[in-house]
Amino acid sequence: MQVVRQTKEMQKISDRLREEGKRIGFVPTMGYLHDGHISLVRKAKELSDSVVVSIFVNPTQFGPGEDFQRYPRDEEGDKAKLEKAGVEFLFIPDAKEMYSPRCQTYVEVTEVSKGLCGDFRPGHFRGVATVVAKLFNIVKPHIAVFGEKDYQQLLVIKRMAEDLNFDIEIIPGTLIREEDGIAMSSRNAYLSPEDRKKATVLNRSLVKAKELFDSGEKKTYNIVQTLKKSIESVEGVSIQYVEIREAETLERVEIVSRPAVIVVAAMVGSVRLIDNIIIGR
Amino acid sequence: MQVVRQTKEMQKISDRLREEGKRIGFVPTMGYLHDGHISLVRKAKELSDSVVVSIFVNPTQFGPGEDFQRYPRDEEGDKAKLEKAGVEFLFIPDAKEMYSPRCQTYVEVTEVSKGLCGDFRPGHFRGVATVVAKLFNIVKPHIAVFGEKDYQQLLVIKRMAEDLNFDIEIIPGTLIREEDGIAMSSRNAYLSPEDRKKATVLNRSLVKAKELFDSGEKKTYNIVQTLKKSIESVEGVSIQYVEIREAETLERVEIVSRPAVIVVAAMVGSVRLIDNIIIGR
Repeated sequence: MQVVRQTKEMQKISDRLREEGKRIGFVPTMGYLHDGHISLVRKAKELSDSVVVSIFVNPTQFGPGEDFQRYPRDEEGDKAKLEKAGVEFLFIPDAKEMYSPRCQTYVEVTEVSKGLCGDFRPGHFRGVATVVAKLFNIVKPHIAVFGEKDYQQLLVIKRMAEDLNFDIEIIPGTLIREEDGIAMSSRNAYLSPEDRKKATVLNRSLVKAKELFDSGEKKTYNIVQTLKKSIESVEGVSIQYVEIREAETLERVEIVSRPAVIVVAAMVGSVRLIDNIIIGR
Repeated sequence: MQVVRQTKEMQKISDRLREEGKRIGFVPTMGYLHDGHISLVRKAKELSDSVVVSIFVNPTQFGPGEDFQRYPRDEEGDKAKLEKAGVEFLFIPDAKEMYSPRCQTYVEVTEVSKGLCGDFRPGHFRGVATVVAKLFNIVKPHIAVFGEKDYQQLLVIKRMAEDLNFDIEIIPGTLIREEDGIAMSSRNAYLSPEDRKKATVLNRSLVKAKELFDSGEKKTYNIVQTLKKSIESVEGVSIQYVEIREAETLERVEIVSRPAVIVVAAMVGSVRLIDNIIIGR
């Protein structure tokens, strides 16, 4: 695996791969990789000839008071995992390489970024859209894989790619869970053993909500109420939002008649977790 | 010359050109072409193997009450001029092809877009940056040429390209003037013969201001005052702004010690014109 730290070098490599007629698959990450990331890499490998993974903890998508400084990092461990997964290129720039002091350009996806995490993390999706646009121009992939775990982010990226005519296919990667059902996330590392147990209520409640839907309940309000009660029954877990949105556009729905996504964000102790489940698909 | 109307088709052509190892030069325009545009094409030809010109009157860079509807158009005349100039591809999409109804992504260059035309045309540079980002992803050029006539726009594009890591070299094209000195612009077509005469005061005053600078006057305030007086001496010409800014960053300067640009915007009758001259270079 070749480790690349300079944007210009990465662009040259991608130009060469393209000249050789190779299809480039791209998986952008913030590192501290888990099996969820590796499943995205596997998907990229299936759909391309050369896989580039990026690791960059992007400061502009963290708000003041968020966990940018303490976000978990493990470059050596990550390298070993990517090597093993058959990744050809690791792009791992530092913040100086990504943002010159004169940087003043932002990419904003207006509608899909509103509500949900957009309300609780102001500026987050602007940071995400901007850094992903930059990474797309640096890595020049044919396809890019983003996990469904970060469901709103996936839709923000999809819209951005289409709206700005990026010639890149955005591929969703299935949400991967730990054995106890909790959605894989680098942030799970923050959880105490006790909080980790409490956090399992999110997935458990989502599964119950899906069963409720599958058994005939189509009213968003009723499903959400049941879900909220279930989550709030665990002490120390406090809901930020629980909503059901149209799966393709994130528009609000009152009666679920097309594929929809139930999205949840909650604080478990001091750790913010998100999770989701798709219904009607 | 091949005329291309679909974004996907243009992307395929550019991919093929790149696979053939060809350097793509790009000149984005709003059509109604004059010798200023053709000089940009000539520059692109010098620096590349295949030149793509786009013609698109971009609705999102016009404000309410601006001249989007009446902006002059002449597709057949433009084609003939580009054919003659040796352009290989004309990309000429319609608005539907460029903007789907779901479009909701904007590219914003914050600092350089402020002041000057940014004050008089709110949203203009956001529209420009967004459409140029789109065109870059559609045409995938190695170099792109933008005229120095639209000086602030040139810097907005330069910043955007660098900030978003577009692997595209932005080449400035010299401002070209008519025989009477007025800066070439498609909007000159709006001028009555009488206003056309009045409009020559802009260039005349800029040349005098440069002479003043060259003869030793380095104080922005003094140069601007002289310039304003000169322009305002013509009845029917009303200044929007006259400023001297640092040539690379558009930062304000009080004493000109590095290359700077004197920028002017004025209404001549009902027609808005801009002009500029570089000093200290």
